Amino acid sequence: MGVVVSIEEGRPDAEASLADLVALVSGGMERVNAQILSRTGSDVAMIPEVANHLIDSGGKRLRPILTLASADLCGYAGIDGDVKLAASVEFMHTATLLHDDVVDGSDMRRGRVAARIKWGNEASVLVGDFLLGQAFRMMVEVGSLRALDILSAAATVIAEGEVMQLTAAKNTGTSEDEYLAVIRAKTAELFAAACEVGPVLAGRPVAEQEACRAYGMNLGIAFQLIDDVLDYGGTSAALGKNVGDDFREGKITLPIVLAVRRGTEEERAFWRRTLEQGALEEGDLETAHTILRRHHALEETVARAREYGTLARDALDPFPESPMKSALLQVVDFCVSRVH
Amino acid sequence: MGVVVSIEEGRPDAEASLADLVALVSGGMERVNAQILSRTGSDVAMIPEVANHLIDSGGKRLRPILTLASADLCGYAGIDGDVKLAASVEFMHTATLLHDDVVDGSDMRRGRVAARIKWGNEASVLVGDFLLGQAFRMMVEVGSLRALDILSAAATVIAEGEVMQLTAAKNTGTSEDEYLAVIRAKTAELFAAACEVGPVLAGRPVAEQEACRAYGMNLGIAFQLIDDVLDYGGTSAALGKNVGDDFREGKITLPIVLAVRRGTEEERAFWRRTLEQGALEEGDLETAHTILRRHHALEETVARAREYGTLARDALDPFPESPMKSALLQVVDFCVSRVH
Repeated sequence: MGVVVSIEEGRPDAEASLADLVALVSGGMERVNAQILSRTGSDVAMIPEVANHLIDSGGKRLRPILTLASADLCGYAGIDGDVKLAASVEFMHTATLLHDDVVDGSDMRRGRVAARIKWGNEASVLVGDFLLGQAFRMMVEVGSLRALDILSAAATVIAEGEVMQLTAAKNTGTSEDEYLAVIRAKTAELFAAACEVGPVLAGRPVAEQEACRAYGMNLGIAFQLIDDVLDYGGTSAALGKNVGDDFREGKITLPIVLAVRRGTEEERAFWRRTLEQGALEEGDLETAHTILRRHHALEETVARAREYGTLARDALDPFPESPMKSALLQVVDFCVSRVH
Repeated sequence: MGVVVSIEEGRPDAEASLADLVALVSGGMERVNAQILSRTGSDVAMIPEVANHLIDSGGKRLRPILTLASADLCGYAGIDGDVKLAASVEFMHTATLLHDDVVDGSDMRRGRVAARIKWGNEASVLVGDFLLGQAFRMMVEVGSLRALDILSAAATVIAEGEVMQLTAAKNTGTSEDEYLAVIRAKTAELFAAACEVGPVLAGRPVAEQEACRAYGMNLGIAFQLIDDVLDYGGTSAALGKNVGDDFREGKITLPIVLAVRRGTEEERAFWRRTLEQGALEEGDLETAHTILRRHHALEETVARAREYGTLARDALDPFPESPMKSALLQVVDFCVSRVH
């Protein structure tokens, strides 16, 4: 088992293998950030307040970075199509987070009080809608119907994934396939779309569009699986700080799915009481961790993530060697290695 | 003062002056309804359940009717661009209603239990997002970037209007201008966009696009003002059944704005207690009605609606006489005459 190194967003060691990519797109990201700032503007003062509360809170902006990188990988030489689509992708993601907080009843987001606590559920729903509208306006400005098609389809799939998750929520009988269908839709689809629009903008053949889409899709799955593991403190034997949110919210993630499948009847009763009925008692998180360790559920989830990481790396085979390609390969390692 | 004739959706007398328009677009609306049905489909069973709960509940579908009508008025002769944009407009409207219910905490919608009561706030938020995504997908299929621009801008403006309303909510100091800005954005903008895309599809000159937009915008304002009056039972001296929702929810509408402006200090204290503080007592709705009557606030609101109705009618001047034009003029009378 690995040693816990709690790697949170913004900490230097987390940036290590993202550094090359961040450096390569830094010029573009400055323009994306300016675009984001200007497009949250509104005469209705509450809109930039709520939007910037979340946007300024220091996410990695991995999705818009992927859009810039895939456009660059494919030789996009236009003026600002990549910047506008990257900002659109980030707005779609932000809108999803705002709506998610309402759906999950979350109190915290990115280490800050959730917008819905500060401004109410109403504001979270409506500012999310505003950002989604602005995302589509930016896409329309870019003028690529194919990019619009990809991103509007993604918006639909993400919502479907969230509803699927709602339906599967608190059901400890969720199968691995069902769980993968949920995270493909709710997380990986936006990674895939963010990467696919790059070659589309650059007017590259369908094969390259599919390659970039496959890279994003598999990276997104790996990313989410590692997130699931991190929520139980990584693969270390000990529980760290700030873990257990998924457990307390009764979320069924892959470690749970694996542990339930391999568990005894007594263990299953434990998962039903804690996750389905939410009847939590002192020491339950520690018990959950013990059961997960007993069945190697966290390590197996990491192993699954590594497989998807390999698929993501392989997807880039058609592209010739370049600093951008190397940087995109490193991102896969970064995502998978966050865990230990 | 007029006599109360409670005209609700679906009752024959309400259909009277919509009848010509409904007849003229009936073929197109059958295809719109088929489109709506097929686009609420999803492997995730909860999505069509929630969507159809609202969609089947018998709204007039005035907005998609306006899209078909304006396309026809302008001689659109394409295959199904009008049908898909009309379905998009209805999905945008339905998404707004689903999100509104969460924002307002409403228990009822169109005489049915609100979706959020039956399936939860989560489902209302997410199915709204799904429908918005599907709306954009249909627009992309139509392929008109200008129509996409109009409708995505409308999505943004509607969300802005809703946030504006949230900010103004329960503030009895709201001015008439502020209130009009809210209903322009949250209600009239979608009427305007629904009408504007007709001439756009038909490839007509900007002057006709602006004429159709102006028709929709002014019709939308008139429509909302009459809705405000109907919520106090129309202009009759007596209170009818099923009225007072706005009052109980503390909504500031034009009748209230006018009554507050003309009111005594005692009356203003009444509005602050009931609308701002929500400290309702037995008999308050009757008192509200008495004060509104004392200041002719309902009649004046109807008078304002008539003015906007006139602007809507005048906007169609550039178009030659035709059965469709006559039908669109009648719609204005229908909207304004619902009240007495």
